[in-house]
Order: sequence, then C-alpha cells, then structure tokens
Amino acid sequence: MFVKQSQTRFKVRYAETDAMGIAHHSNYVIWLEMGRVDFMTSLGLPYREVEKRGVLLVVSGVAVKYRRPAFFDDELLLTTRVGLLKSRLIRFEYAIERASDQSLIAEGSTEHIATDFEKRAIPVPQYLRDLLE
Amino acid sequence: MFVKQSQTRFKVRYAETDAMGIAHHSNYVIWLEMGRVDFMTSLGLPYREVEKRGVLLVVSGVAVKYRRPAFFDDELLLTTRVGLLKSRLIRFEYAIERASDQSLIAEGSTEHIATDFEKRAIPVPQYLRDLLE
Amino acid sequence: MFVKQSQTRFKVRYAETDAMGIAHHSNYVIWLEMGRVDFMTSLGLPYREVEKRGVLLVVSGVAVKYRRPAFFDDELLLTTRVGLLKSRLIRFEYAIERASDQSLIAEGSTEHIATDFEKRAIPVPQYLRDLLE
Amino acid sequence: MFVKQSQTRFKVRYAETDAMGIAHHSNYVIWLEMGRVDFMTSLGLPYREVEKRGVLLVVSGVAVKYRRPAFFDDELLLTTRVGLLKSRLIRFEYAIERASDQSLIAEGSTEHIATDFEKRAIPVPQYLRDLLE
Repeated sequence: MFVKQSQTRFKVRYAETDAMGIAHHSNYVIWLEMGRVDFMTSLGLPYREVEKRGVLLVVSGVAVKYRRPAFFDDELLLTTRVGLLKSRLIRFEYAIERASDQSLIAEGSTEHIATDFEKRAIPVPQYLRDLLE
Repeated sequence: MFVKQSQTRFKVRYAETDAMGIAHHSNYVIWLEMGRVDFMTSLGLPYREVEKRGVLLVVSGVAVKYRRPAFFDDELLLTTRVGLLKSRLIRFEYAIERASDQSLIAEGSTEHIATDFEKRAIPVPQYLRDLLE
Repeated sequence: MFVKQSQTRFKVRYAETDAMGIAHHSNYVIWLEMGRVDFMTSLGLPYREVEKRGVLLVVSGVAVKYRRPAFFDDELLLTTRVGLLKSRLIRFEYAIERASDQSLIAEGSTEHIATDFEKRAIPVPQYLRDLLE
Repeated sequence: MFVKQSQTRFKVRYAETDAMGIAHHSNYVIWLEMGRVDFMTSLGLPYREVEKRGVLLVVSGVAVKYRRPAFFDDELLLTTRVGLLKSRLIRFEYAIERASDQSLIAEGSTEHIATDFEKRAIPVPQYLRDLLE
C-alpha cells in the first residue's frame, strides 16, 4: 500500500549546536516543522496556502526521542508522514537519520488542531483530510 | 510530604513569537531547560557544576502538551519537579501557567541520561541521585 | 543631564550556547530586543501597546561588536538607551556587561522605522517621540 | 577579475517568523553563518576542518541592513564573499535576495578573529589566508 511521505535533507547549522558540541535538542522541534511544511508542499498544498484559506494548524503536542547526537554540518534526512487523521486532530510522525551512515538520530511526532484566525478550534477542513489521507 | 520543586518566572520574548502571533512551540523546549537549570540551582548544585565534574545530562526525550497560546510579553510561571529517578534515567516534569490569570499554558516532561564527555552513558552519579530524590 | 536608560538582567540559557562553549553571537540580537522592550516598559509605554495603536517598529539595521565571550549561566546586565531620534528613524544603543566582574561583553545598536500593519513606512508618531526624547 | 563567492539557497522556516508576520531579524545573523560555512566548503576547506586543526573563527562583529521583509516559505538566495583579509581579521560580506523577484532583502557583514581553543587570539593561519585570498 502506498503511504504518503516526504523527505527533507538539511545540514545542522553551527547556531544549532550547544556547549555539549551537539545539536541542541530544541532544534529538532523546528526541523519537524520543516518536515511537515515540505510534506504539504509535496502534496501540492503548501502550508502558506492553508493559512491563506483562513485556517491555522496549531501544534497541540510534540514528542521527540533522541537516539544519537547530531553534530555541526551533519547532513540529516528527515522523513515525514501522517500518523493519524481524525475530524479534529492530525498527527504527523517523523524519523531523522544521518545521511552518511543511515543511523537513526531521532523519532518524533506532533499533533495539531485546526483553528480559525481567532484561534478557535474548528474541524480539520475536508480538503485537508482528503489531501492527507 | 515535601516535594522538591522550583519556579521560574519569565516573559515571552518578541523573537519567540511566530506569524500566528503566539509563542512558537519550539521555545517551550528551551523554557523547560531554563526550568531544570533553575531547579538544580535552587537545590544548591548548579548544572554548570555537574559539567565541571565531568558529567553531562543529555536529553533523551521531550514531550509537551500545549493547552493555551502564550503571547508576546506574557509573564509565565514555570514549575519544575523530578518525576522519576532511576539509576540510568532522570525525568523532569513541568507545568507552565500564565502569571496574570493562572491559566495552564502547557505541560511537559523531559528525560535525561548521564554521560561522560565522550557521550558514553554512565549511571546517574550518586550525588545527583541524593540531591534529586 | 538626565538620560533615559533602562537595565535588563538575565542569564545565558544553555540553548544559547554553541559548540565553541560560548553564547552564540546571534542571541545577542535577541537580547538587544529584550533591552528595548524593557526600556519602553520602563517609560510606561510597553511595546505591545504601540502595536495595539497600529504601529510597528521594524528593525532596519543592527550592529554588534563582541568584546568578550559570555558563558552558560553567566548573569548579564544590558543597558539600553536612545541614541538618535529623528522623524523617521529611532536608534537604540546598548551595552552588555557581565554582572560578576562588570567586564564589557558587547556593544550594539539597532535602527528602526515606524510602519503601519501593511509595513508601509510612516513617521515616528509624536507620542513615541515625546516619550523617547 | 575572478572574485571568490558562494551562493546559498534556503527557505524561511515558520519558526523564523515573528508576530509581525515576517522573518525575525535575528535569524539573518544565523543565515549569514550558513553562508560563510557554505563559502568555505565551496573552497574545499569546510569550517569543521578548521576547528579540527585547533582554530576557531570567533565572530567579533556583525552588521545587517534590512531592506525588505522576508516571509514564511520565501526562497532566499544568499551571496557570500570575503570583504577584507588581514593578519588578524577576516571580514565576510553578504547579500540576501528573494529568489522569486531578485529583490534585495538584506546586506550584511561579519568580522572574525582567529583563536585557539582557549579563546586566545592568534594570527589567521596562512593556509586560511591563502584559501580566502
């Protein structure tokens, strides 16, 4: 069965490292966001278009498991897919590997609700559900 | 029974906001770190002293549930406590409230392993266990 | 002569360090922003109120000279004052010292133009000029 | 005359936007760093190799002029070149354009000194001068 997923390739920025000499764990949360932005673009509906239609996908939860450290200039490969899709919840799932040795760096998930611009929860619009399914 | 916990008070920086007009969710992970740094300082063992003793507390997992948005200049109150303490794992738990109305903004947890400077896992040192218990 | 200035005290976050073991230079730009936010609050007009009146103070330039490194958990003291005030330009000037030894860490300046919400340049409103003068 | 320069193409991350709906000005400083990392890689000496040889290129100054706002998902094109090279100072110069319309987004420069791992200033190593010249 075909599962929709996308891949994002990027390098660890020096600014993303910390005094331990590794990528600071907070940046992974930003990387996951890059992953789902790319995911939606790859499906033909860039996230900026979603906002133009008056819908925000607000993050309601995030979880990351850190498996191995990532270092400055490491090339990372982030895979994004939809893990769960309900009328009022979208969950994306992610894996980050180091490109050079395919070692697993981290796994994560994020949960999202749809809101209008006043941040009031609304059902996930049908065109989004159709797209993500 | 007395439970060790600490409180950290801070304001949302403009740089921490995003185009939704709210604090970007990645910053919460940085705030949690501020919380446990303050927690350890309040117990008399600043985290920088732990590193001086050759021990790193590496983050192995993080999870955040976002309950309400936080806005620029909001004063937030972050409570940190130890949730779990094992020979090879420390879990901190956190709650973030808005100071003005005590509304719950987010809850979170982080898990940590101890390593040496070569990032090799070691047991949590006894002086740390005694302190956190 | 009385010169309006404000002081902001804060600690270097672990997330703000980099693989050199020092605070990454990009964070200073965020700190300067904290300084001018505190400056305006100390004058009785929090920046969020300026935005509520429909005015954005957009950054048109920034410059920082880094004098000494700052380290994790260092307490820093940031002094902010207005350096120049013209009909279409505000310049803030800043100095950052380490609290423990009063050593100069960095000096900087930022320049700002006023815009409306469509990012069209407007003159600095008179109430802002009166306040900052 | 041939002038060494490199180009870096990247997109504005959502996390890099702020409540004004534009890329926060602090991120430009991180982008410039990406530019010079790419610049050195393009010359065959990745910056991580410089550090492996015991040399740090510490930022002693940064300046940015912001010409036009950049928005989420904008593709930006960053050009990096050496502006000045002295025995104890390297200056990089940068321009950022929006890829879609070649409009100038920002210009900037950074200054660097070479240090050893104890952060003591040293002359810029000859192999670096040869490379950058």
